[in-house]
Amino acid sequence: MRTSIATVSLSGSLTEKLTAASRAGFDGVELFENDLLASPLTPEGIRARCADLGLSIDLYQPMRDVEAVPAEEFARNLRRARHTFELMRRLGAGTGLVCSSVSPLAVDDDALAAEQLSRLADLAQDFGIRVAYEALAWGRHVHTYDHAWRIVERADHPALGTCLDSFHILSCGSDPKGIEDIPGEKIFFLQLADAPLLAMDVLRWSRHYRCFPGQGGFDVVGLVRHVLRTGYAGPLSLEVFNDVFRQAEAGPTAVDARRSLLVLQEAVGTAGLPAPVVPTGVAFAELVTSDTEPVSALLAALGFARTARHRTKPVDLWQQGEARILVTTGPAVRRGGTRLAAVGLQSPDPAAAAERAEALLAPVLPRRRDSRDAPLDAVAAPDGTELYFCGSDRWRADFDPVAHNPAASGVRHIDHLALTQPWHHFDQAALFFRSVLGLHAQESVDVADPYGLLRSRAVTNDDGSVRIALSVGAAPTDDTVRARHVALATDDVVAAARRFRAAGGRLLPVPANYYDDLAARYELPEEELSTYRELGVLYDRDAHGVFRHCSTRTVGRVFIELVQRDGGYRGYGAVDAPVRLAAQQAVRAVTGG
Amino acid sequence: MRTSIATVSLSGSLTEKLTAASRAGFDGVELFENDLLASPLTPEGIRARCADLGLSIDLYQPMRDVEAVPAEEFARNLRRARHTFELMRRLGAGTGLVCSSVSPLAVDDDALAAEQLSRLADLAQDFGIRVAYEALAWGRHVHTYDHAWRIVERADHPALGTCLDSFHILSCGSDPKGIEDIPGEKIFFLQLADAPLLAMDVLRWSRHYRCFPGQGGFDVVGLVRHVLRTGYAGPLSLEVFNDVFRQAEAGPTAVDARRSLLVLQEAVGTAGLPAPVVPTGVAFAELVTSDTEPVSALLAALGFARTARHRTKPVDLWQQGEARILVTTGPAVRRGGTRLAAVGLQSPDPAAAAERAEALLAPVLPRRRDSRDAPLDAVAAPDGTELYFCGSDRWRADFDPVAHNPAASGVRHIDHLALTQPWHHFDQAALFFRSVLGLHAQESVDVADPYGLLRSRAVTNDDGSVRIALSVGAAPTDDTVRARHVALATDDVVAAARRFRAAGGRLLPVPANYYDDLAARYELPEEELSTYRELGVLYDRDAHGVFRHCSTRTVGRVFIELVQRDGGYRGYGAVDAPVRLAAQQAVRAVTGG
Repeated sequence: MRTSIATVSLSGSLTEKLTAASRAGFDGVELFENDLLASPLTPEGIRARCADLGLSIDLYQPMRDVEAVPAEEFARNLRRARHTFELMRRLGAGTGLVCSSVSPLAVDDDALAAEQLSRLADLAQDFGIRVAYEALAWGRHVHTYDHAWRIVERADHPALGTCLDSFHILSCGSDPKGIEDIPGEKIFFLQLADAPLLAMDVLRWSRHYRCFPGQGGFDVVGLVRHVLRTGYAGPLSLEVFNDVFRQAEAGPTAVDARRSLLVLQEAVGTAGLPAPVVPTGVAFAELVTSDTEPVSALLAALGFARTARHRTKPVDLWQQGEARILVTTGPAVRRGGTRLAAVGLQSPDPAAAAERAEALLAPVLPRRRDSRDAPLDAVAAPDGTELYFCGSDRWRADFDPVAHNPAASGVRHIDHLALTQPWHHFDQAALFFRSVLGLHAQESVDVADPYGLLRSRAVTNDDGSVRIALSVGAAPTDDTVRARHVALATDDVVAAARRFRAAGGRLLPVPANYYDDLAARYELPEEELSTYRELGVLYDRDAHGVFRHCSTRTVGRVFIELVQRDGGYRGYGAVDAPVRLAAQQAVRAVTGG
Repeated sequence: MRTSIATVSLSGSLTEKLTAASRAGFDGVELFENDLLASPLTPEGIRARCADLGLSIDLYQPMRDVEAVPAEEFARNLRRARHTFELMRRLGAGTGLVCSSVSPLAVDDDALAAEQLSRLADLAQDFGIRVAYEALAWGRHVHTYDHAWRIVERADHPALGTCLDSFHILSCGSDPKGIEDIPGEKIFFLQLADAPLLAMDVLRWSRHYRCFPGQGGFDVVGLVRHVLRTGYAGPLSLEVFNDVFRQAEAGPTAVDARRSLLVLQEAVGTAGLPAPVVPTGVAFAELVTSDTEPVSALLAALGFARTARHRTKPVDLWQQGEARILVTTGPAVRRGGTRLAAVGLQSPDPAAAAERAEALLAPVLPRRRDSRDAPLDAVAAPDGTELYFCGSDRWRADFDPVAHNPAASGVRHIDHLALTQPWHHFDQAALFFRSVLGLHAQESVDVADPYGLLRSRAVTNDDGSVRIALSVGAAPTDDTVRARHVALATDDVVAAARRFRAAGGRLLPVPANYYDDLAARYELPEEELSTYRELGVLYDRDAHGVFRHCSTRTVGRVFIELVQRDGGYRGYGAVDAPVRLAAQQAVRAVTGG
């Protein structure tokens, strides 16, 4: 099926929007009136630009407050419509959208609405144009899709059909099954949007919080299935009003949008994708730094040994148990130094994993950086983090062993990776990790930082051997200061923390008040409590088990968390995060780091 | 009355919050548990810090899910409460807050709730502490203030009273009149918050959108009047959860908060303030620049004449009709050059106006910058804009006339000033202009910019001779790029625009598509339309009249708008703003300006 996107879903000037839509692989656009008005291009210029970019103008929108009004008002509306149709002819746009009226002049009279829409369609027909009538969820008299359809049916005009919008239908709780009663050829257009399930007035919800299918809580897939059963053959078009997307760069948003449609088409069976290959573990985390000294000291104190060195590049492999961390010497960067730049994922079929990622528009990275390297399948996540699909230990063939003393602090493997996301692309990240890697997303939680609320959301595989916590700062400016972290699983976090400290490592200090409160919340033995207090170990429980965790000081933009996950605890210690964040801010205030 | 603020209302570490509250003149704080937990200070340390800052700890909060639970659960709750009371003793906090339970374990049994709260109060009494029970709007069984009071009344315990929170009461539509039925001495605490009138689930509304009294849509004044009639003698305390305030600097937020309470106290009659002195006109706008050349050329082309020069400083007075613009040579600044830095307001009583401003915590500026200058009353607005109260033309005594050719383009006076606000302090700005200057605030409107939604809100005096349009960008990072503007009133914007262009001035080009649409919307004579098209004049109508307006190119961070306001038009052309903003972005994209 053809795919389309409304220009209002993207940020920037009209030409920026069109370029982004084209590069992401859309077939067409819905041209929003405001984008046309503000563009220096003539209608013919816009048409030519679209043609150059391989885009059709699938819809021009909106016409408002047209129908069910007094005759004099309708005459004015027809006059304006003539202008619009003339414009559409110049644009080469064949379908125009009419939204159900919100005018105080509109009356509750389906016969009048049908008659006036029919006259509008007469006029449209003269221009070779079709009109699609859509029920706004807040329309004055017409606010359900079946009501809009009844009026269209009554008008019975070849140039008049209906437009279905998943947001308007699902936000007001209509049963989409009834869509199947509409003949497919009378559905002139299908607009898709998802939205988080918020209880708020529907106008505000619609104008500010829509998102791409799969990023919210609506069953958009189910709705599309109903539409397809009617024989609808028009485009799948995204119409998303979102305050964040309005600010974000159009290019990545368009890619995100198109990825959401590809996943939707896979779900409804109109397009095939290589099947997901769910990763089965974390092969490694890669830290890039211009100065390996601080991070090497940190890893050594944590009981890691430098076990191997890359044959051709300045990359060290540090290992402990099944936890592997690559330390790569990279160019100095202006801000922050050491960063968590790549993740190796164990994959049952790396090539197939990369194929799916590529089909879902993830940039594929070169298989070799050097002709002597073993080939690796790798793609970039939306935030630029490199994801390596590792089928076996073949990637280690590039590493030569280094003599080392076996040292260990009881770290067994990587428990999870915490990846701070760019502010404008949080929903995009969750969709990427779910759709590309086949991970499950947990609920989003708010976490209070001293300087604003963060949002956090984890994605995991079934057995929890791959856990990635995505988080986003309170404001766009936050991106540059947030540290990412690698959480290391231990069977005994207290022992691991003690060994780290004995080896000269510095743990993040936790305020004593936290432990006084912990004593009040749980009946922990005094000795246990004083151990936590001494080391800065945080403690959480959920319905399944217990989570104990502590953090190292931050190096550059990375810190290490030591965690002990017992009894099937499922979370990430979010309840402790405000205390940890405040402690990190306090350290930063002292060190300026 | 004493004033207090919850630490959760302010950004930063606990010590930053306390410092900000103290400096803004609050008498006390509500200490939020999370702020204590995350603080490296001991409870005694916090107590001492508060004492040093002249702050009492008026409330410790919250205790949750305490009452109406099975006996075993209640025993655990009492155990935790003992810890809390011990902590409160160390803090020197005399009152603790208990929120009505949201626990699934809680039962709908007022007798049990009263009995358990009474036992809690017994324990509190042992510590010399009082407990204030508050109905959360989303409490499981208790969600109205009168229900909470019935339980407190039933418990009939000297250490148990109720806490009233204006948000919880007004958000769920309770009639606050019933408050008068509660004996004042049983109201242990009063928490105040306002909120915009949003239709959304109350928990989300409460946690993210509260604001200070006078910044939202609740009748907080009316509620406080009811409370005062009971004889309540405790503090007026602000408890505001707001995503923006969480990110903003604590100092200005605390000042904003205290200002809102001062205005509230004035309204309920518990504190006197010098009466508002509403400005009666705009005396001048002051542009500061390091390079006077571009702005001088702009003003000259607009028909302004340089009529006078300051005797002691590099300040030029440019004048046309009653429009006066000062151009001050200031130091070069890193970004943007020319800026709109000060506004002179005609005032019937400048000294009284400044007194009120000072009483409302506006920084008072030195009356003279030089010993030879005429003294002026001036204060700084929250965004740093200097406001001069001008009683007569005395301020012009400092200026020596300069020989000039009378030139004019039909500009009569300053129609309005558009002041872009720092992202974090938009509500604060509206409250400031309303309360300090006695202006009226109009509704807030959203305006689409190509790179995000802006919000805009105007404040005016009764006859419209002072109009200030406040606007705020889509993101904190937006502050640095938005231009402010001075709108000049003309009787004939077309003539003024023509003269400007003839004098070499450059108008902002408006896309032709805008005019095609205008032709469709209104039946304007073709000649009129082509004139607008030629000059870039935008056109709007409201129920009262017509607004025609066009803009110059931007100089530094300022541009000039020429406007013609006919027939009592009340707006600012907001409907045209997206086109104007897109056109400005297009120019910037070309010039890099």
